[in-house]
Amino acid sequence: MVQDDFERNYFLKDIPLQAAQDKYNNHLNEIKFTDARTTERVAINDSVGRVSSESVFAKISSPHVTTSAMDGIAIKYGSSIGATETRPITLYEGSDFVWVDTGDPIPDGFDSVIMIEDLERSTGNEVVIRSPVAPYQHVRKIAEDIAAPELLIQKGAVIRSLDLACLGASGLSEVEVISHPKICFIPTGTELVKIGQTPKAGQIIEFNSVFMSALVADWGGEAFVIDPVPDDPVLLEKAVLEVLNNCDILVVIAGSSAGSEDFTSSVINKVGEVVVHGVAIRPGHPVILGSVSGKPVMGMPGYPSSALVTAELFLKPMILNFLSSNQIVSDTLESVMGKKISSPLGEEEFLRVVVGSVDGSYIANPTTRGAAMTLSIAKSDGVISIPASSEGLEEGAKVRVFLNRQRSEVTNTLLISGSHDIALDILASELTSLQNGIRLISSSVGSVGGLLSLSKGFAHMAGTHLLDEDTGEYNVSAIKRHITNEKVHIYDFVGRTQGIMVQKGNPKGIKEVKDLLGNGTKFLNRQRGSGTRVLFDFLLKQSGIDSENIIGYDNEEYTHWNVAAAVSSGFVDAGMGIMAAALASDLEFIPLENERYQIAVPSKFIGSMENVDILLESLLSENLREQIDALGGYDVSLMGNVAAIVG
Amino acid sequence: MVQDDFERNYFLKDIPLQAAQDKYNNHLNEIKFTDARTTERVAINDSVGRVSSESVFAKISSPHVTTSAMDGIAIKYGSSIGATETRPITLYEGSDFVWVDTGDPIPDGFDSVIMIEDLERSTGNEVVIRSPVAPYQHVRKIAEDIAAPELLIQKGAVIRSLDLACLGASGLSEVEVISHPKICFIPTGTELVKIGQTPKAGQIIEFNSVFMSALVADWGGEAFVIDPVPDDPVLLEKAVLEVLNNCDILVVIAGSSAGSEDFTSSVINKVGEVVVHGVAIRPGHPVILGSVSGKPVMGMPGYPSSALVTAELFLKPMILNFLSSNQIVSDTLESVMGKKISSPLGEEEFLRVVVGSVDGSYIANPTTRGAAMTLSIAKSDGVISIPASSEGLEEGAKVRVFLNRQRSEVTNTLLISGSHDIALDILASELTSLQNGIRLISSSVGSVGGLLSLSKGFAHMAGTHLLDEDTGEYNVSAIKRHITNEKVHIYDFVGRTQGIMVQKGNPKGIKEVKDLLGNGTKFLNRQRGSGTRVLFDFLLKQSGIDSENIIGYDNEEYTHWNVAAAVSSGFVDAGMGIMAAALASDLEFIPLENERYQIAVPSKFIGSMENVDILLESLLSENLREQIDALGGYDVSLMGNVAAIVG
Repeated sequence: MVQDDFERNYFLKDIPLQAAQDKYNNHLNEIKFTDARTTERVAINDSVGRVSSESVFAKISSPHVTTSAMDGIAIKYGSSIGATETRPITLYEGSDFVWVDTGDPIPDGFDSVIMIEDLERSTGNEVVIRSPVAPYQHVRKIAEDIAAPELLIQKGAVIRSLDLACLGASGLSEVEVISHPKICFIPTGTELVKIGQTPKAGQIIEFNSVFMSALVADWGGEAFVIDPVPDDPVLLEKAVLEVLNNCDILVVIAGSSAGSEDFTSSVINKVGEVVVHGVAIRPGHPVILGSVSGKPVMGMPGYPSSALVTAELFLKPMILNFLSSNQIVSDTLESVMGKKISSPLGEEEFLRVVVGSVDGSYIANPTTRGAAMTLSIAKSDGVISIPASSEGLEEGAKVRVFLNRQRSEVTNTLLISGSHDIALDILASELTSLQNGIRLISSSVGSVGGLLSLSKGFAHMAGTHLLDEDTGEYNVSAIKRHITNEKVHIYDFVGRTQGIMVQKGNPKGIKEVKDLLGNGTKFLNRQRGSGTRVLFDFLLKQSGIDSENIIGYDNEEYTHWNVAAAVSSGFVDAGMGIMAAALASDLEFIPLENERYQIAVPSKFIGSMENVDILLESLLSENLREQIDALGGYDVSLMGNVAAIVG
Repeated sequence: MVQDDFERNYFLKDIPLQAAQDKYNNHLNEIKFTDARTTERVAINDSVGRVSSESVFAKISSPHVTTSAMDGIAIKYGSSIGATETRPITLYEGSDFVWVDTGDPIPDGFDSVIMIEDLERSTGNEVVIRSPVAPYQHVRKIAEDIAAPELLIQKGAVIRSLDLACLGASGLSEVEVISHPKICFIPTGTELVKIGQTPKAGQIIEFNSVFMSALVADWGGEAFVIDPVPDDPVLLEKAVLEVLNNCDILVVIAGSSAGSEDFTSSVINKVGEVVVHGVAIRPGHPVILGSVSGKPVMGMPGYPSSALVTAELFLKPMILNFLSSNQIVSDTLESVMGKKISSPLGEEEFLRVVVGSVDGSYIANPTTRGAAMTLSIAKSDGVISIPASSEGLEEGAKVRVFLNRQRSEVTNTLLISGSHDIALDILASELTSLQNGIRLISSSVGSVGGLLSLSKGFAHMAGTHLLDEDTGEYNVSAIKRHITNEKVHIYDFVGRTQGIMVQKGNPKGIKEVKDLLGNGTKFLNRQRGSGTRVLFDFLLKQSGIDSENIIGYDNEEYTHWNVAAAVSSGFVDAGMGIMAAALASDLEFIPLENERYQIAVPSKFIGSMENVDILLESLLSENLREQIDALGGYDVSLMGNVAAIVG
């Protein structure tokens, strides 16, 4: 329990990233941990992805003798000189020619081959030719492919499938490669349950070791994981000393409690040395870097984003160093930020982003932040770093994205910005299922945010449902107001039913908006700028309700599903959102308003951007309509119609 | 023996690639081979690289309850309102707060957390606070990361390591993936020997099945290979029918003989259907596409480049189709051709290229052509296609390269064009062994060709050893003649001894150039434009010898090692080249001339291109000198000196 540790040292002195890397690299050089590196011979069948521990030279040339490249006869080219259509030359088997198949060696004294297709047979042992041949015609000269001892594979190169043909052709069956470094993970924490188990309140699924093991394999290491160690320094020390003999690098993954980080630090200090504890990066600052008995030992923070960043910054270079691999394995991309992002001064922040290409520029948008986030890791296309000296990045700032996807996937992405809707997930699924599947990435920034993104060229389209209170019309006036620089087509997507989500049985007895007042009812709101918020504020105004009297009015969520999860869990009593989210989460729903959710597309993209046209066409597909209709709460009758052209 | 098959149908009617793809795809749709597709559940630990067979939705939200994000106390935020430095508030355990660790659920009735660092303890069950807290401070709200049943992985997506965290966090331990399609390879040919065996004359190493198995694994299939089947249609038919039950796609790899292709075709026709035989592509035109008992059967040509191209064009799409994978897995690059390349009209040619970036443009240079080539496959960065309607590409033509390397590796490449020298291989090895290893790619186009490449901006530097007969000086006058548009630094690389390579014991008794005449002596020359050829022509002129009298004068090779291999094998008696190649191939050597091999670098790159500076600096390294000196026949004393600045 935390109150027993009131005296712990809470304030780590974070040092800058470069200083931490320099300090730890010096230490790693001193302890010479790569001396444990060994090599092994593997069959070339098993060599793909391995690092060559020596330069590989051809053992034999290819072809290893001069051979015929065709089926036919081998001759001396001199004996064909003078042959013409009208003055053919007859050649005699044995003295003038011998029969050869493709791949047969050219017998001594012969130098050229005539294809069987070009021969005329006269008698059993004679052929007739009607044109001369060039010297060395249809002959594969010795070493034409590989001239032994030519260099085939550089030392330190990662062997690819494409390399296997020349290894085999030059007489090699095995290559010497660097053995995988063994990385052992020790998860710590008393409250951990295994992957696949349903955690009780207070329990946490231990998935970091599986996540990290997969990354270690990507980087060329071999991971193994022992059973979680409870939050107890004695048990942790025992575990560290036990596994150390069987690994090259040891990683202790912190449990959920900050206390366990301190156990890790004190245990490493007791049996070895802590070199760095606390680095000015975000996420991941409480990382511990040290060594025990000449082996690197890392204390990795337990939040998954923190684990990922510290693994990429410190574990990956150790593995590559151990493998002596000089291969660069990742691509980078110059992009512009699609939105302003603030970042704490004094910490280098590593921020995952999604990237798409709009009108010739790569646009990077941050995924949800937070060290505990996992879905935002999976959704990300890459990572950017914001220097410690910076308080953040302006919208439009140039950034370098370190990609974790193929660049071509990024290029094949459509960005839709604006209001969140579940039907967009179905549309995205539909688009990826096409040949050369298009990725549709949604940024949930609310209807107004989406229109602003569009006007700045940061998205291909915007999802919007903004009611004009005066005209009762959706979106047209808002688009006119926010997008003044170009013509926009408005396509109908779905009609939706907005309303109040409440728990099964409606325990607070809510029937209309004014029932949100009193009775201790806790409400969960959507963020400012979202169409749902605009609608809710309009409904409050209609009912004459002061928002200050609604408990939780300032508590904001960004998607319908998050609101539904909060209601479903009982953390709040009611939330504003669409019927489909309520149905999916098995909630009751009080319908309030039918609205038109539409997609705004700059007219210049229509007919000129293939992916945009494919999306617009797929809005007319019966299959898509049926899937969305099946969610309930949607009207799909107008989907794909052009509702208006503005500007 | 080939003469028995005089009546075979040699003239395949090649059909255009698009027609072949359409025809075969229609056939595959008809036989519905993907109906054999099955799925399997795998642990998420084993799911990386697999194709998800269904959209994966979160099972539980993450966090699954609202939890504390810090160690400290949970309170109602209302109870902190009014606390200041001078008017602290005392909170009582139980009624006002409870202790929580990070990850603990927030107990009912509480909504915010104060970090332990911000607390003052008064007595056992009381704490003092001196500032109010914001609502939901340090609380991880339910579903903050993942709101079940949110979409985690799209159907058809290839699962990456980065996806595992969210799968684990949302309560999943397994995912349903598409089972690997099983691809069986039947190598055919009587003269095949296994990988690693030293082939006798007439024998061929069977490496295609290993090469193809690795590619199949890259593409998501599972390959297995049976023992080679001799060139006998009865045995082949038996083998085809036997393995068909255990695979999803069957590939017969042709032996060396064209006859075996016909066996394959006739066997498939007998027990199934040949749909396409002969496609207008190069290499790979004799490919056979058909089916037996509802399973695709492919007859793959035996030359490795042909096997690769036909595998990429026909086998890979079948595997991806089977896997329902829509993921795009390769990157492309707009490049310009560094040299003119001709290509036969009527065939779509697939040409492997190496790519580097010079002065902002990507330059693609073809690797050695020839369907039998393996090293050029390994060296290649990607492939371009030259349409059937084209007779080739002009130098400078724009081409799209389909990369098989990371783009960043391509960018990190230096291109040296010009004369071939073995010491360049050592330099290349030295550069790759650096951190973020630079790739040095040499194009052996001869000294004059290298200078022309440089003048056109197609290379970063050129290797040259061109003697000015009038001044006795190397390279300066040639550079002045060929590079008129910019200033060039000339760096010394190596002094070399040029001469005549002959077999051990010098059986033809060659002592000087004129001994190449008579005695039936067969000579092997270097290509026009190479410095060695210029030198040889100069020596012939000096000795008053007419080149027409030298047998093999017109027989050209492009590298010293290929000349050495030809001499060593006895295919020719003598060849012109450098001493180092003769020593490496255990040949005798008649020295004729010492020459200066130098590297020409446009002055604009010096000090402005980091990789160029690193290369120039490494010319001064003692380690490099020692390695080159150890080859023999080199003078390394001037290496790295600036010999002249021209222009």
